[in-house]
Amino acid sequence: MNEYYNSAYKPLLAIDCVIFGYEQGELKVLLTRRKQDPYKGAWGLATGFLHFGESLHYAAERVLKKQTGLDRIYMDQLSTFGEVDRDPEARVISLVYYALIKVESQTLETLEKNQAQWFSITALPKLMFDHETMIQMSWGKLRRKSRYQPIGFELLPEKFTLPELQSLYEAIHQKQFDKRNFRKKILATGLLKKLDEKQKGVSKKGAYYYVFEEGKYDELISQGFNFELKSMAFGS
Amino acid sequence: MNEYYNSAYKPLLAIDCVIFGYEQGELKVLLTRRKQDPYKGAWGLATGFLHFGESLHYAAERVLKKQTGLDRIYMDQLSTFGEVDRDPEARVISLVYYALIKVESQTLETLEKNQAQWFSITALPKLMFDHETMIQMSWGKLRRKSRYQPIGFELLPEKFTLPELQSLYEAIHQKQFDKRNFRKKILATGLLKKLDEKQKGVSKKGAYYYVFEEGKYDELISQGFNFELKSMAFGS
Repeated sequence: MNEYYNSAYKPLLAIDCVIFGYEQGELKVLLTRRKQDPYKGAWGLATGFLHFGESLHYAAERVLKKQTGLDRIYMDQLSTFGEVDRDPEARVISLVYYALIKVESQTLETLEKNQAQWFSITALPKLMFDHETMIQMSWGKLRRKSRYQPIGFELLPEKFTLPELQSLYEAIHQKQFDKRNFRKKILATGLLKKLDEKQKGVSKKGAYYYVFEEGKYDELISQGFNFELKSMAFGS
Repeated sequence: MNEYYNSAYKPLLAIDCVIFGYEQGELKVLLTRRKQDPYKGAWGLATGFLHFGESLHYAAERVLKKQTGLDRIYMDQLSTFGEVDRDPEARVISLVYYALIKVESQTLETLEKNQAQWFSITALPKLMFDHETMIQMSWGKLRRKSRYQPIGFELLPEKFTLPELQSLYEAIHQKQFDKRNFRKKILATGLLKKLDEKQKGVSKKGAYYYVFEEGKYDELISQGFNFELKSMAFGS
């Protein structure tokens, strides 16, 4: 390494992961108890330092796998946090990823083993460091992204009804959508496939199940398609 | 520092800045010659390592000021790049910012002193490291952002005509917009103030000058307004 590199300051680099889930009409975040000082025992995000020889993407996958036991999670970089005093113990730059998983992928056993718990986004506990800001910013990105990418489907079970999908969007945006309008717009995207199977025991008529056609979406994206829910999101 | 921190790997952290400008119908990028090995003399982005005691935001401002001589530039984080082999000399994580400045802020003297040069985004020279990817991704973000935020105004002189504004959007999106439709949509945002002054010597009739009302925009943003040029951007 030459002098230009050798004389440069080297901070620590952490990866923090905001893990979203959706359950019973609520957008949730998976939090965990911190295992070391400072703030041992406090609630916070899944976290880890970058290791030697690891790409950032791989490091995020490692942290997510360690926390959830899951591979190939939908994840994306949010932003990098670098206030000088964000960690009182050392200078730590934090690269934040947000991820979407299905709540049912975390059994009670998994949660207990990892000292983890789902919290409603509207009722978070006190969090260590700047993790509250990381969550709020990730939620903002999720709101924006859900207007032009069918990102929400990552949070739903494989098959879902239109009322369930609407509830998810209402939880993400914290507002109610007009049922007819939502139906019309979401079906107009052409990304949902109706199954010949109805949900049982919820309503008299029963709502049909739908699945998300990922292949079709990839095809549309490659053609420059834009999943436009914006006008819906801002009221009918 | 306790063992948890002390034993963690410490990479170098660089700040790379994609600096956009706009001139004569072309979206441009400000590039500079690298001053040290490896790749001494190669074209690349304005860059610098994070210093001890600096926030990331401050470090980006320092790198931008050193390159352009300017303070208080419009800038935003793009993403963090961390492929293991992105720099052959050392493990360097790079945090990329993109910035918008006015081309006329850089005199020939400034450019020469800084070994810098403006290049059209469609005719970039060979670039060191992954700087080409950083530029292409920043351009993508600029395209997306210009559809819902009046970001383009940062690139124009204080007062501009509607044809000039349209040319800027055409350069960002690399496509032509219908003149009447563009006019209608851009004026409907209510963000432009028409001046009682015409451009001289360009066309017989002469086009009126406009200014961007920043205060009004801030007000609208705080009310949840969305600067919607999307349908325009995707054809009338």
